[in-house]
Amino acid sequence: MRTRIEILARELFPGGRREPVLLGVSGGPDSLCLGHVLASLGYRCTWAYFDHSLRYTSQAEGEAVERMAREAGADFVRGQGAVEAYAQEGGLSIEEAGRSLRYQFLFEQAQAQQAQAVAVAHNANDQVETLLMHLLRGAGLDGLSGMAFSTLPNPWSAELPLVRPLLSTWREEIEAYLKENHLEPVLDPSNQDTRFFRNRLRHELVPFLETYNPHIQTALWQTADLLNEDRRVLDAQAQRAWEQCVTWEEPGAVALDAVRLGEAPRGLQRRVLRIAIQKLRPSLRDIDYAAVQRALEFAAAPPANASADLAAGLRLEWEEGWVWLAEREKELPALGWPQFEGNGLEQLPTPGEMLLPGSWRLQAEVVEGQAGELHARAQSNPDPYQAWFAAEVLPLFVRARQAGDRFQPLGMEGHSLKLSDLFTNQKVPRRARVRWPLLVSGGAIVWVAGCRQAEAHRVQPDTTRAVHVKLVK
Amino acid sequence: MRTRIEILARELFPGGRREPVLLGVSGGPDSLCLGHVLASLGYRCTWAYFDHSLRYTSQAEGEAVERMAREAGADFVRGQGAVEAYAQEGGLSIEEAGRSLRYQFLFEQAQAQQAQAVAVAHNANDQVETLLMHLLRGAGLDGLSGMAFSTLPNPWSAELPLVRPLLSTWREEIEAYLKENHLEPVLDPSNQDTRFFRNRLRHELVPFLETYNPHIQTALWQTADLLNEDRRVLDAQAQRAWEQCVTWEEPGAVALDAVRLGEAPRGLQRRVLRIAIQKLRPSLRDIDYAAVQRALEFAAAPPANASADLAAGLRLEWEEGWVWLAEREKELPALGWPQFEGNGLEQLPTPGEMLLPGSWRLQAEVVEGQAGELHARAQSNPDPYQAWFAAEVLPLFVRARQAGDRFQPLGMEGHSLKLSDLFTNQKVPRRARVRWPLLVSGGAIVWVAGCRQAEAHRVQPDTTRAVHVKLVK
Repeated sequence: MRTRIEILARELFPGGRREPVLLGVSGGPDSLCLGHVLASLGYRCTWAYFDHSLRYTSQAEGEAVERMAREAGADFVRGQGAVEAYAQEGGLSIEEAGRSLRYQFLFEQAQAQQAQAVAVAHNANDQVETLLMHLLRGAGLDGLSGMAFSTLPNPWSAELPLVRPLLSTWREEIEAYLKENHLEPVLDPSNQDTRFFRNRLRHELVPFLETYNPHIQTALWQTADLLNEDRRVLDAQAQRAWEQCVTWEEPGAVALDAVRLGEAPRGLQRRVLRIAIQKLRPSLRDIDYAAVQRALEFAAAPPANASADLAAGLRLEWEEGWVWLAEREKELPALGWPQFEGNGLEQLPTPGEMLLPGSWRLQAEVVEGQAGELHARAQSNPDPYQAWFAAEVLPLFVRARQAGDRFQPLGMEGHSLKLSDLFTNQKVPRRARVRWPLLVSGGAIVWVAGCRQAEAHRVQPDTTRAVHVKLVK
Repeated sequence: MRTRIEILARELFPGGRREPVLLGVSGGPDSLCLGHVLASLGYRCTWAYFDHSLRYTSQAEGEAVERMAREAGADFVRGQGAVEAYAQEGGLSIEEAGRSLRYQFLFEQAQAQQAQAVAVAHNANDQVETLLMHLLRGAGLDGLSGMAFSTLPNPWSAELPLVRPLLSTWREEIEAYLKENHLEPVLDPSNQDTRFFRNRLRHELVPFLETYNPHIQTALWQTADLLNEDRRVLDAQAQRAWEQCVTWEEPGAVALDAVRLGEAPRGLQRRVLRIAIQKLRPSLRDIDYAAVQRALEFAAAPPANASADLAAGLRLEWEEGWVWLAEREKELPALGWPQFEGNGLEQLPTPGEMLLPGSWRLQAEVVEGQAGELHARAQSNPDPYQAWFAAEVLPLFVRARQAGDRFQPLGMEGHSLKLSDLFTNQKVPRRARVRWPLLVSGGAIVWVAGCRQAEAHRVQPDTTRAVHVKLVK
């Protein structure tokens, strides 16, 4: 066992024996064993004990662990947390709250001591029980792959790995080591009370499964190991798929390109959606199968109202080929669209300009030229962000949309479109339409800025005086 | 349930209602239900019954199934196989042999009837039990992902999919459907006898797990579903990795580039090795964790003797950066290397050529030129497949290696190398060395063909008559 850990430690602690390791120690058999093995291998460890303040005995336990650390020649730090208050505040279970505060403490200490890693003492049996626990509760690959020898990034750090050097060591081996070295753990009674479900697995389910396969624990450990490796491959793939799909990301809202998402295989689609949910709800530990399923179906075939509830206070919204995942009350960003926020009509100074929000500007100039020349320039303009009119168009006004607005596009003589249909054709997102800047002259819309010019007031072959309008950012 | 199957069938049977479906029917509740539902949805089905010839009752069962098919308005075919004999012959279990013969029969029939697919009636409970069975025996992602709605290619065909339209339908729903439609299955007694392990899962383990989570069957079904999707992503990745790693493939032997293999993440390395094993042993259903592990470790750090046993009559061999997986007795191919298969010395006609096996040729010509010119040409030759000598080198002979051969490379005056060291430096595979063609003159090696020229007889600045030798294919 010692040799196995020595080999593992070389891989898990790239800083070697020079840089310290922060070791989470409860005083139970696992952490006591790990602390001693690492000390005997020459690693410099700080033993960190976290007092959950849940039991009368925890003060005494902490002192016992401190003595043990001294005996092992290790440094010692103690932390304390108001687990019950933290649980109530965050709506967490006691176990969940304790875990969260404990890891925060360990990583703070590791940072403070410039440790190369945080080590914890989960063993091979813990791994098997973790797999079973996830299996019973319902899980995918991530749950079934259990814990990893080394996790980086982890929820607490992007630089300091969380490592588990005992992950391939069985409880029996640990007990034999303690006995051989005359080490007496401070038994952690929380094993009995707060972790009931896990204990039932250990004492009831595992022995039952052993009647089917006496080597079931080894088999399950190997399963977790295999799945862990597969998970790493999938995570890397999912990260690439995410980068290809994500079109917008800000606090409380994320948008994905529905077409690109739809082209990915379903296994990756799920993972991309889970990354999106995780970005919005980083503290969510298990993402519901049904929630991801809903998001998948929504992205593939959005409902008529283009909106749906997701889970955990999040909603889904469909917008012109984008799937939004956002907090329920979050107003989706106006992104980079031009918007007119005035009321009623506002005159566009010509020559001159009008400032719009988001550093958009409408600029107008008067251009004189020979008959034919201006017509040619207007005709050859391919840019929807520019429009050319005969000077008779003046004065020009800007306003937002009104109910019943219609529009006769350039080159479609006699055809009049509803403005809403034009917006749909042009894929202008629904919520950008309300305040989209419209140029009007004599009461009629002459330019849907950045989209389409009207037939009215177009530059004619004999025009010698024109107005050139640009929408710029 | 009928609606769910209708939606699924649209996806699973791209040929629609026009093209026939071949349905494997045992007469048990599942296949009876599937046959009736597909008939009621308008699919043209042929019911195929396979008589395992294992029971006295199977003749009567077949007749009962035939009546049922008639009642459902379906065609009927019957097959028969000597399962026991087949099992003994192939060293298979009775169940394994029956399964193999049954699927062979189904796919032969499907081919004969130009069916669009072979459908079988596995249900959602079967899926859960399959997952558990694999979990208990020890499995990775592939085993835990259970069965798929549609599998193509499958072990029996590259064109005809094997589909399972009932895979998301629970046994309870099937029974309710049969009751409602007054359908009476021929109960399949093999459920009780040959599938003991599965039955113990069904009647003992599943109810036990339900005490942990009453919805465990749904949870496990979803797990299989998720893993199935992940498997598809990984399979596609593994196929790409395989194509990048494989350097040689022939019946009984496969070689992988060890460097490229080593660069892939471990999860893919395993899959590439499993593809290699599958190519050599296509009938192997479960590839052992330990075998793949051995191959992985071998590829990462080959043992001193460059050879090891793998599993299932296969061996591993290391050769200059290539990992071979091969049948134990298989002689590895000589690949494309130049080899001299004569005995003793053979003169190289100059000018002229000598034919070597595998369409290799040694060509020699005499070149005359001015002093300095030939020297310059010899000096500027970067190609190890060509050598230049002063004409004094003639006559040239070709031979294979002899014990104690030494060699003084061009440009390393005074240094003499063992030929074996030169071969190692040049990464010449061990078994290509014995018959590697060597050019000799006056008893000394002057060219290790295709590798390195000797110092002796080199072209000098005053040489006006040279011999130019080429190794070509």
